[in-house]
Amino acid sequence: MRLLIVGGVAGGASAAARARRLSESAQITVIERGPDVSFANCGLPYFIGGDITERADLALQTPSSLSKLLNLEVLTNTEAISINRSDKTLLTKNLISGETTTRAYDKLVLAPGASPMQPNLPGLDLPLVHTLRTLQDMDRIDQDLDNCQSALVVGGGFIGLEMAEQLHHRGIKVSLVEFFPQVLPPLDAEFAKDLATALREKDIDLHLGESLVSLEADGPSMKAHLKSGTQLDADLVILSVGVRPESKLARDAELQLGERGHIHVNEFQQTSDPDIYAAGDAVETLDSILGGHRPLPLGGPANRQGRTVADHIFRGDKALPYPGSIGTAIVRVFDQVAAVTGAGEAELKRRGVAYQAVTINASSHADYYPGSETIKLKLLWSPEDSRLLGAQAIGRDGVDKRIDVLATALRGRMTIDDLCHLELCYAPPFGGAKDPVNLAGFAACNLRDGFLRPSYAIPESPAQIIDVRPTAKFQSQPVPGAKNIPLPELRSRLNEIDQDQPVFTICQMGKTSYFAARILQQNGFDAHSIIGGVNVNL
Amino acid sequence: MRLLIVGGVAGGASAAARARRLSESAQITVIERGPDVSFANCGLPYFIGGDITERADLALQTPSSLSKLLNLEVLTNTEAISINRSDKTLLTKNLISGETTTRAYDKLVLAPGASPMQPNLPGLDLPLVHTLRTLQDMDRIDQDLDNCQSALVVGGGFIGLEMAEQLHHRGIKVSLVEFFPQVLPPLDAEFAKDLATALREKDIDLHLGESLVSLEADGPSMKAHLKSGTQLDADLVILSVGVRPESKLARDAELQLGERGHIHVNEFQQTSDPDIYAAGDAVETLDSILGGHRPLPLGGPANRQGRTVADHIFRGDKALPYPGSIGTAIVRVFDQVAAVTGAGEAELKRRGVAYQAVTINASSHADYYPGSETIKLKLLWSPEDSRLLGAQAIGRDGVDKRIDVLATALRGRMTIDDLCHLELCYAPPFGGAKDPVNLAGFAACNLRDGFLRPSYAIPESPAQIIDVRPTAKFQSQPVPGAKNIPLPELRSRLNEIDQDQPVFTICQMGKTSYFAARILQQNGFDAHSIIGGVNVNL
Repeated sequence: MRLLIVGGVAGGASAAARARRLSESAQITVIERGPDVSFANCGLPYFIGGDITERADLALQTPSSLSKLLNLEVLTNTEAISINRSDKTLLTKNLISGETTTRAYDKLVLAPGASPMQPNLPGLDLPLVHTLRTLQDMDRIDQDLDNCQSALVVGGGFIGLEMAEQLHHRGIKVSLVEFFPQVLPPLDAEFAKDLATALREKDIDLHLGESLVSLEADGPSMKAHLKSGTQLDADLVILSVGVRPESKLARDAELQLGERGHIHVNEFQQTSDPDIYAAGDAVETLDSILGGHRPLPLGGPANRQGRTVADHIFRGDKALPYPGSIGTAIVRVFDQVAAVTGAGEAELKRRGVAYQAVTINASSHADYYPGSETIKLKLLWSPEDSRLLGAQAIGRDGVDKRIDVLATALRGRMTIDDLCHLELCYAPPFGGAKDPVNLAGFAACNLRDGFLRPSYAIPESPAQIIDVRPTAKFQSQPVPGAKNIPLPELRSRLNEIDQDQPVFTICQMGKTSYFAARILQQNGFDAHSIIGGVNVNL
Repeated sequence: MRLLIVGGVAGGASAAARARRLSESAQITVIERGPDVSFANCGLPYFIGGDITERADLALQTPSSLSKLLNLEVLTNTEAISINRSDKTLLTKNLISGETTTRAYDKLVLAPGASPMQPNLPGLDLPLVHTLRTLQDMDRIDQDLDNCQSALVVGGGFIGLEMAEQLHHRGIKVSLVEFFPQVLPPLDAEFAKDLATALREKDIDLHLGESLVSLEADGPSMKAHLKSGTQLDADLVILSVGVRPESKLARDAELQLGERGHIHVNEFQQTSDPDIYAAGDAVETLDSILGGHRPLPLGGPANRQGRTVADHIFRGDKALPYPGSIGTAIVRVFDQVAAVTGAGEAELKRRGVAYQAVTINASSHADYYPGSETIKLKLLWSPEDSRLLGAQAIGRDGVDKRIDVLATALRGRMTIDDLCHLELCYAPPFGGAKDPVNLAGFAACNLRDGFLRPSYAIPESPAQIIDVRPTAKFQSQPVPGAKNIPLPELRSRLNEIDQDQPVFTICQMGKTSYFAARILQQNGFDAHSIIGGVNVNL
């Protein structure tokens, strides 16, 4: 078995390692265009910002250690030029010597990754304009920053946000420009808003719904011209406006590609040529929530897809298929952590999928134990069969845990009913007798069953809005147009509410307002509870 | 609807709250023997130790606030004496006035909880011998400790361990006596061993496989006599040797009880009398992993069972049934956190259930990002259908998250294959491209599929043991009887190993030894990898 693997980082390195575990006798060659293999690309921003201090920690393996450990041929600085599918050969070129070689394969694995998009705008060829993909990119940015006071990050996706945070850690004044009216488009708008607040609190100069038009040199610094006419000064620019799959090799070989140019694969990561596999950022995989195929350029899927490749090559039908992706992701922006799994509201609307949604605010662990923090948690589910479609969360502590639980529930095709009775760890430092996931399940079922009649916004005046918080809370953070009737007084003050008009209840988190609405509904009022309360809506 | 609820803490308070949400018109009376309702009983040790400083934080509701909020009749210091099932009445007694009252019910809910077991031993009536169930118990212990230097905790279950930790925080010299040869019997022995180490590192004087025989006064202090003849000095004694269900009321009313005296209920928490429900520590519920019924005196199940009660009373068949318990629990002991879900090895053996098990050591998040900690994670699954049966973990950080994910997988009846492709949050501060749960799934599948041939202990000499760690590691922490061949050298040194004898590979965590065993197996050796490596076995 002669196995050629194009790409030696996440998907390629995983395929090579698993392949060797399954076969000591296979001839395995890893072909990597860059000088490094198996490095921690997700760690690059954190070295720039100083969270990670040892560069060597990012080089998980050197070409020579990888070669020795797995008995591989590792060819760095070597580019895969073209595939001859009928001969089953790959033409490669040594980028240093210029020498080309034709290499035979029994199975070929494409794990070339994705490259940062480079918009075609004036000034992007200036020397202090960077993208971040490799250790060398990182080194250049790191070095250049020593002489910089300010930076512009173009693009507010995962890498853009991580870079903004890390540049700020390093004492750089940061501007961030994002084309969409919110950061992190996979996140629903009300969650993205909280991230924007976290950025602004650290004096990140945030420009949403805005785009870069051109850059011009300004002494050693630069001037960035935005679409609105705004001008920003920046000593250094990071472009993080998305990635483009490295699928030219596959395209030239006439392998099937998806709509956006990603390599199409089946559940065993086989391309349209069964002797050629693909894994990682260059492929599109099954969307296991909504169906169809989608790209998902993330490290976890890449690694596990690489493993699937090796399994199928050496174990055939006994291999565990890759079940598709659900899109779990997380980002930390200063003291806020946001995470998502499955489909968001924007995606569901775009695809015309019917859904219901509820947002709760809950404590990361028992309130009475010190250090608990509020988590805002949203569930989206199908009204047809109550199955979970997605979830999002934001907070300081415990966000990753809840989204991991919900990602597991999604994979298990669980319903909102199932979430009510998940039996999760409870001791005061770790959770609550009713975990936020349980509480979200309760709220979702209450909504589905008609007990919770939701209002997703504070209605415009004139409307009957009853704020059921304690009077002190109401006074310190008033809700426009609302009348204050604290919950314990509600039953005795029903006569103050007009029974002929709809009434909207609001509180801090969205829980007490539900209790109030239940009292009102059972007393004949058309009462609606404002989801997420003041925390989400003010 | 006249609803009587006996017990105003976890299960009872939840039933009352949900009942009121479902019906404004029901007459709801909560009958509580103690002076408090709805208090945070899981928080009591942490007030004694000083983690929680405000006593008021533990009183989640006062009788009057609960009464006002939910429009309930709340009768504290009132004991339920007897049930007349044919008349549908409950006889209660005011413990202050002595007055008895007969109260009619349409539905009766029993949520009386469980009381600490009081062994019948000489000296347990001494004034500084305590159990911990109520706020008053807590206050007495808190006060008495002001004059104490030392304490003996009898029983190393959850409360015993939490008390040992908190007493130490308070500067008290602690001894702990446990009847079983390990602390925390639901945990498998090798995990309990790590907790014992954590206790001993903080100078907790631990006596395992030992029992208290008698106490005698010794001036203002006490002498504890243990079965082995050992004598311990203690100024104060905490008895935490388990709980006994408060099921006398149910027994006298001839409701069906389980083997160990717990109230038997169906999936809607109905007792053998359909007008009488029960919830919380006094009941036994379906064991949803192994079948049959079991008690599980924990706060989470109690609260959710209480909610189920109210749902079934007011919604009938539309209620969401309680799906049984899986036994998820967690404890922090100084810097170690141990958690468990589902069945452990001892339980599986006891019940004759076939299982396979694997233990891995993995990092709580990407190794290259600072602060990652090793988690030891064990999976147990059925060889018949590969379904998960249970999981345990211990470590400093991220233990709760992994056990919550696995508890969700258990509830979803997932297999070890499903665990391989869970798509969990990955960014360097939060996880790894392959999460510990994925890695555990890989190891489990490798074991099932015959790639990983496990050895669960270091074999006795003479045996061929190959330590494949780097030589420096081998020298600083040698494995008795082992020969050192670092993994990268293994392929070139196969001639140093006797092919006619079984060979056992070992490393630090159990991962590299698996890689080594794969090399050896494929070269014709009968090679076995020692599960968990030096971390688990030395």
